[in-house]
Amino acid sequence: MKFSVNSSLHYDVTGPGTLVCSLSCIQTQGQQVTNESLLTSREVNRTDLWVSLVANHFTKLDITEVGPLRIDYSAEVTTSPEVVEAASLGNSASQKLDADAIPYLFPSRYVPSDRLRYLSSELFGHLNSPYAQAMAVEDWLAEHLTYTPGSSNEYSWALDTYTSGEGVCRDFAHLGIGFCRALTIPARYLTVYAYQLDPPDFHAVFEVYIDGMWYLIDGTRKAPLNGMIRIATGRDAGDAAVATIFGSIIGQEITVATAFLPETPDKTFIPITREDLRRDGMALFLG
Amino acid sequence: MKFSVNSSLHYDVTGPGTLVCSLSCIQTQGQQVTNESLLTSREVNRTDLWVSLVANHFTKLDITEVGPLRIDYSAEVTTSPEVVEAASLGNSASQKLDADAIPYLFPSRYVPSDRLRYLSSELFGHLNSPYAQAMAVEDWLAEHLTYTPGSSNEYSWALDTYTSGEGVCRDFAHLGIGFCRALTIPARYLTVYAYQLDPPDFHAVFEVYIDGMWYLIDGTRKAPLNGMIRIATGRDAGDAAVATIFGSIIGQEITVATAFLPETPDKTFIPITREDLRRDGMALFLG
Amino acid sequence: MKFSVNSSLHYDVTGPGTLVCSLSCIQTQGQQVTNESLLTSREVNRTDLWVSLVANHFTKLDITEVGPLRIDYSAEVTTSPEVVEAASLGNSASQKLDADAIPYLFPSRYVPSDRLRYLSSELFGHLNSPYAQAMAVEDWLAEHLTYTPGSSNEYSWALDTYTSGEGVCRDFAHLGIGFCRALTIPARYLTVYAYQLDPPDFHAVFEVYIDGMWYLIDGTRKAPLNGMIRIATGRDAGDAAVATIFGSIIGQEITVATAFLPETPDKTFIPITREDLRRDGMALFLG
Amino acid sequence: MKFSVNSSLHYDVTGPGTLVCSLSCIQTQGQQVTNESLLTSREVNRTDLWVSLVANHFTKLDITEVGPLRIDYSAEVTTSPEVVEAASLGNSASQKLDADAIPYLFPSRYVPSDRLRYLSSELFGHLNSPYAQAMAVEDWLAEHLTYTPGSSNEYSWALDTYTSGEGVCRDFAHLGIGFCRALTIPARYLTVYAYQLDPPDFHAVFEVYIDGMWYLIDGTRKAPLNGMIRIATGRDAGDAAVATIFGSIIGQEITVATAFLPETPDKTFIPITREDLRRDGMALFLG
Repeated sequence: MKFSVNSSLHYDVTGPGTLVCSLSCIQTQGQQVTNESLLTSREVNRTDLWVSLVANHFTKLDITEVGPLRIDYSAEVTTSPEVVEAASLGNSASQKLDADAIPYLFPSRYVPSDRLRYLSSELFGHLNSPYAQAMAVEDWLAEHLTYTPGSSNEYSWALDTYTSGEGVCRDFAHLGIGFCRALTIPARYLTVYAYQLDPPDFHAVFEVYIDGMWYLIDGTRKAPLNGMIRIATGRDAGDAAVATIFGSIIGQEITVATAFLPETPDKTFIPITREDLRRDGMALFLG
Repeated sequence: MKFSVNSSLHYDVTGPGTLVCSLSCIQTQGQQVTNESLLTSREVNRTDLWVSLVANHFTKLDITEVGPLRIDYSAEVTTSPEVVEAASLGNSASQKLDADAIPYLFPSRYVPSDRLRYLSSELFGHLNSPYAQAMAVEDWLAEHLTYTPGSSNEYSWALDTYTSGEGVCRDFAHLGIGFCRALTIPARYLTVYAYQLDPPDFHAVFEVYIDGMWYLIDGTRKAPLNGMIRIATGRDAGDAAVATIFGSIIGQEITVATAFLPETPDKTFIPITREDLRRDGMALFLG
Repeated sequence: MKFSVNSSLHYDVTGPGTLVCSLSCIQTQGQQVTNESLLTSREVNRTDLWVSLVANHFTKLDITEVGPLRIDYSAEVTTSPEVVEAASLGNSASQKLDADAIPYLFPSRYVPSDRLRYLSSELFGHLNSPYAQAMAVEDWLAEHLTYTPGSSNEYSWALDTYTSGEGVCRDFAHLGIGFCRALTIPARYLTVYAYQLDPPDFHAVFEVYIDGMWYLIDGTRKAPLNGMIRIATGRDAGDAAVATIFGSIIGQEITVATAFLPETPDKTFIPITREDLRRDGMALFLG
Repeated sequence: MKFSVNSSLHYDVTGPGTLVCSLSCIQTQGQQVTNESLLTSREVNRTDLWVSLVANHFTKLDITEVGPLRIDYSAEVTTSPEVVEAASLGNSASQKLDADAIPYLFPSRYVPSDRLRYLSSELFGHLNSPYAQAMAVEDWLAEHLTYTPGSSNEYSWALDTYTSGEGVCRDFAHLGIGFCRALTIPARYLTVYAYQLDPPDFHAVFEVYIDGMWYLIDGTRKAPLNGMIRIATGRDAGDAAVATIFGSIIGQEITVATAFLPETPDKTFIPITREDLRRDGMALFLG
């Protein structure tokens, strides 16, 4: 499937500062990026970095002149999410752990999984496979949390979300990741462009590592699982923020647009939801 | 210089569980490991993993039988810490940032650097080079924090240390890393064997990234800087814990010993402290 | 019923400081105190204060000389806890609120009831009377929390207890009070001498305000409800601490003893537990 | 001096709920209230309560019908703030402590003074009288904190304000109270109507207890100290909120107006600021 993505970030620069941006889609086995451009509304000192540690493409902008700054990104991205049989998924995450998944077992800034051990065990400890647990976590998020714009802030972590029962996509993902890590299931955060997300915006979901593959989870259930386009991957929103600000730079506005581009053989977009996958006993991974 | 290191971890296993251990010294340009052994007091399912994401050697132990368990590690390690001129260190961390250092700018579980921006700027913002700032951070830690065993716990983060004014080596490192990241200086956590540390124990210090090199910092000033032997490196203690417990395993006792092995040309150990480095205008990196 | 109570607090004074002690039993309609003494092992500047705001008897000790200090308290206390029919308890706390109970609806240091609204509503919102809710809260504490000495510290608040699933009597009380306040039931903290508590120590329980009376709740279920002797009452442990330290004073040791004194007509102590009260449809208040 | 005060609170009631309002000015030795009215835009079940525990006049509104609700308060208030010589203020708060001031030494929901002991001692411990310390606290707040609307939320506590360096009047007061309590100076929170506050709103300040009197402090320095009209007093904003919501009630809008009413002998309002008081060596209390 082919999508076009566009996003625009507006800032007010009130003094020297640095922006570490991560709004470019990355190239993976399951995702090809073409016609890509990232433009700034005025000339700034720019460095592009591909960070293997978290597999992201960062664009670092060092800005010395004050005034407004706009960053425009656009690309065409061809994705090939795969749907596989869930029944084949193994019975113990801890027994088939790849080295590179280990860091995703550890607690991180917004995901204090060390403090979610008791709650995870109470809620999901009775289930006997990591995949069953991950599915139960997604259900729990969808049933217990209310999606409430403005209910959280940049400092909110998974414990706040649990306590308040509300949040936005970032918070849903953080709490879900926390439950999974506490259950010894590696879990990582994903910032995506999401087709058919309403209203259009960046979206946050997560992936769990089971038997050597990363499966997609979205407790918000606000967009089709096969319309996600990977931007950044990391431990949590701290790693995979669209932009991290250092210095005197103030965020003003964000616009995002994701469109489907009909192509042979994918002439129309056929959405796949968790309900669809469940009915067929399937799981989805982005690749 | 050559050292022998020994450590022993004692556990009580009360149900099935997994231990992810990181007590083996790693092989680096500045560190060679020989005669290494990691033994368990009884047979357990063991996997060794070299995780590039955080550059560590993890030993994963899956344990099904209850009862006591002891893990004994020993090795001989030859280190070659380098002392370089501090005067040559650059004036802006943000301008010469390597890709792999970027994740060490982000907040982590015990280092909420996003919430230390104001305090860091108040305390160190007037200094005009990252190296001067890092040195001021080390001084601040040494002057303001009291080393108090038992004053913190496994959940304590850098804000707690700032507020209480006390902690152990782990807490000193977390707060120092937090200040540095908030100042746009990449900083990472290091678990080490430390020669002449009294009483003998694992030790935690940190490294700051300036002009392409990682320089050693130790706000506790409890051991010579050139007697550190690298075990694990990471964002914070969550990445570089000597052992992370999943399941029903209870820590009991830890013993650690580090000895100097005289060899030509290093027949005696000549300790290097921050005071020595300062007097000569030098900085130290472990390699 | 008549009890003798004894307690002894040992301190090391390392510099000038003030101790605000609250270990004297108070005189109430339901409790008479005789043969009372509070002695210090050496002469210190002492003031006795009866604070109506929290209904406690504070002893303020201003200490200028360093060295060990012991405080010994003893008294004989006659209590007359009342057992009343629970069936008569009203259906809405908020409709029959006395003025003096209002402050016990507000959040306090260790009881952030403002952040427990969602969880309380999820867990107890379906129950249709404040008494039914309060009983469900006590059951929840008894069933979900593990009594684990050393699992919490002086800074732990009700959210920590919820998250970790463990604590000591103080933590059980704080979380129970938080649930109740969030349900619009005034709830207050009580420090008591508790007969038959094993091992002997001070104990913490709480009271809920329903229809003009304060009913006793103890989620730990570690001592008979009719063997409690009121020391201090307040919003939480911050108000009702046995001793609050200002300055350079270090706590060393505490010993507590509570004995039953046979008298006509109460020649033996017949313990009353929640189970007994439930079976008979009764509730207990200390007076 | 005579003032007229008006305030209006707008709510949307979406289900049954209770509002505990505290927007009526209270009658004290230093403050007379006349022509007072508190009206609701529709009939609701109303109870007026005078709570001695925190010295406030609460109006409890039990609301069963959904829909908009407006509460209008107006009154004329004559105040007589007193200005006294600061030089006469004593040297040790802890030595002349009245019983009723004791609870204002304890930590509360938004003022964890137990966790501010180290910082208070570092910042203000060298000063040798409670009045000098209180003045230094006010200066510190004025110099270090930035008044930033929207920078905090209903859950923010004094540690957040310290860490972020910004807040609104409530946050300034909480942090100031925390420093004072940690220094053994009783301190309490005050919600007031403040003449010449710009833009007009409720205001929050605090009082410190020294030698038997409560002196006014305002780290925001946003309004004259002699134009404050006392509404509610308490441990912190949890006690002295203008309205505490239980149930399904959503705040919409607040309007506040405070006017000076010329009268013999006070025909004009002559503002008194801290600067004025300092120059003359004076302190102010509201009575």
